[in-house]
Amino acid sequence: MESRLLARTNKITNTSGLSPTHLQANLLILPTAHAQSFHDLCRRNPVTCPLLATTPAGNPHTLQPSKIIQSTDFDIRTDCPAYRVYKHGKCIAQRRDILDLWNDDYVGFLIGCSFSFEGALGRAGLKPRHQETGTVVPMYRTNLPLLPAGVFTDATCIVSMRPYRPEDVEKVREVTRPYLSTHGEPVAWGWEGMKRLGIEDIQRPDFGEGPFIREGEVPVFWGCGVTPQIAVESAGDKIDGLVFAHEPGNMLITDLTDEDACIL
Amino acid sequence: MESRLLARTNKITNTSGLSPTHLQANLLILPTAHAQSFHDLCRRNPVTCPLLATTPAGNPHTLQPSKIIQSTDFDIRTDCPAYRVYKHGKCIAQRRDILDLWNDDYVGFLIGCSFSFEGALGRAGLKPRHQETGTVVPMYRTNLPLLPAGVFTDATCIVSMRPYRPEDVEKVREVTRPYLSTHGEPVAWGWEGMKRLGIEDIQRPDFGEGPFIREGEVPVFWGCGVTPQIAVESAGDKIDGLVFAHEPGNMLITDLTDEDACIL
Repeated sequence: MESRLLARTNKITNTSGLSPTHLQANLLILPTAHAQSFHDLCRRNPVTCPLLATTPAGNPHTLQPSKIIQSTDFDIRTDCPAYRVYKHGKCIAQRRDILDLWNDDYVGFLIGCSFSFEGALGRAGLKPRHQETGTVVPMYRTNLPLLPAGVFTDATCIVSMRPYRPEDVEKVREVTRPYLSTHGEPVAWGWEGMKRLGIEDIQRPDFGEGPFIREGEVPVFWGCGVTPQIAVESAGDKIDGLVFAHEPGNMLITDLTDEDACIL
Repeated sequence: MESRLLARTNKITNTSGLSPTHLQANLLILPTAHAQSFHDLCRRNPVTCPLLATTPAGNPHTLQPSKIIQSTDFDIRTDCPAYRVYKHGKCIAQRRDILDLWNDDYVGFLIGCSFSFEGALGRAGLKPRHQETGTVVPMYRTNLPLLPAGVFTDATCIVSMRPYRPEDVEKVREVTRPYLSTHGEPVAWGWEGMKRLGIEDIQRPDFGEGPFIREGEVPVFWGCGVTPQIAVESAGDKIDGLVFAHEPGNMLITDLTDEDACIL
């Protein structure tokens, strides 16, 4: 995979639109002591945290299931364009690789990314607005609880938003529905839906860039792969040792295609 | 399975405590047109709707995976002690079997039941209160949204409640955590947790019987398998044709043991 090689050698940053038919993944790397908690968190919250694969403890080169990335030179410590380093729930550094911070106790998790259904929306004549405006998709904190698992007890879900006309919402739901392993269909839509999520100002996202919403359009919200990082932040001191994640937007590019996200 | 035979021949009703080491299941039977929606609902909401098995359309004798019930005389139309019949979201009848209402278009779903972790709680010295008082576990409607899938867009989660001392909550979480396929660890606990779920009066459950809470104890809430029936009620007219469910408390007894619920 040429794009993954470019990421490894730090020749690219934002992976949006790169290898457009390839499934991209969110990344989280934790000490073994917290791996079971995070695994349970994913299984209990598959819409915001759809688990694609894990690495065996201490092995940065192998994924289970192996079909996600088969290249023998795969290295989870270098193959994202950029990483974040967390300590006690706070992001304390940003890195191009984490080779010097890795040790044999770490377990990696790959989480599905909504970039994977955006191609399908485009092919259905429903191109996401942020692709037209060339901006980062707007993301919001919500009051929707992430169902607790182990040390992860107090987090809430993050959602991404794409605006559509009300008469297109059912089609949008239908197109994204099969992509269960990359957040699937929306979790809420419309101005009432926004209120129920506890989002107060659509123009002020918590992550990404402000949206451009045309008159008559309504917001449509999907589960978002930033949620695992927020779970780590919420866990705070309960997590011993460093945690690593991808830098948002700087995803890990897998060997699978977007269509595989429908059957995983 | 002798207990299942007793249920088939309508010699028993409430299955709580029957075949205590055998996994019991909630049941929902829908027309094929809505089967994919319900399957997606389960995959997106595994804590309240943990899917154990399905039947092929029109085949009342076979489960996938088959290990759940292997007896060749299994019949999903007779093997619950009692059934509910829903039309346009309303329960219109109660039956001892549904042989005369069944047709080749129906698909059955078995959903995990929290009866399966109560044995483990008892063995850990944390016997659920409602087993001591001989009452039906109290269940509550919450404001926690069931993440939408297909025709199921407006439902909220149901929870069951068992009271414990605050110092026992971590142990209670630990004991029930492995039972991922039968609701797993609690979704909320404590009086603050109750408020966040939107439950106003702990003494007035929406289903089951009122709780007996000792001074100093706090409520602990788990996902509840009544949720699928509430999803059917919320879908209302969007579901064509009859839908069948078990009568709450009158579960389908499977061939698996409670311990299997940890590895499913």
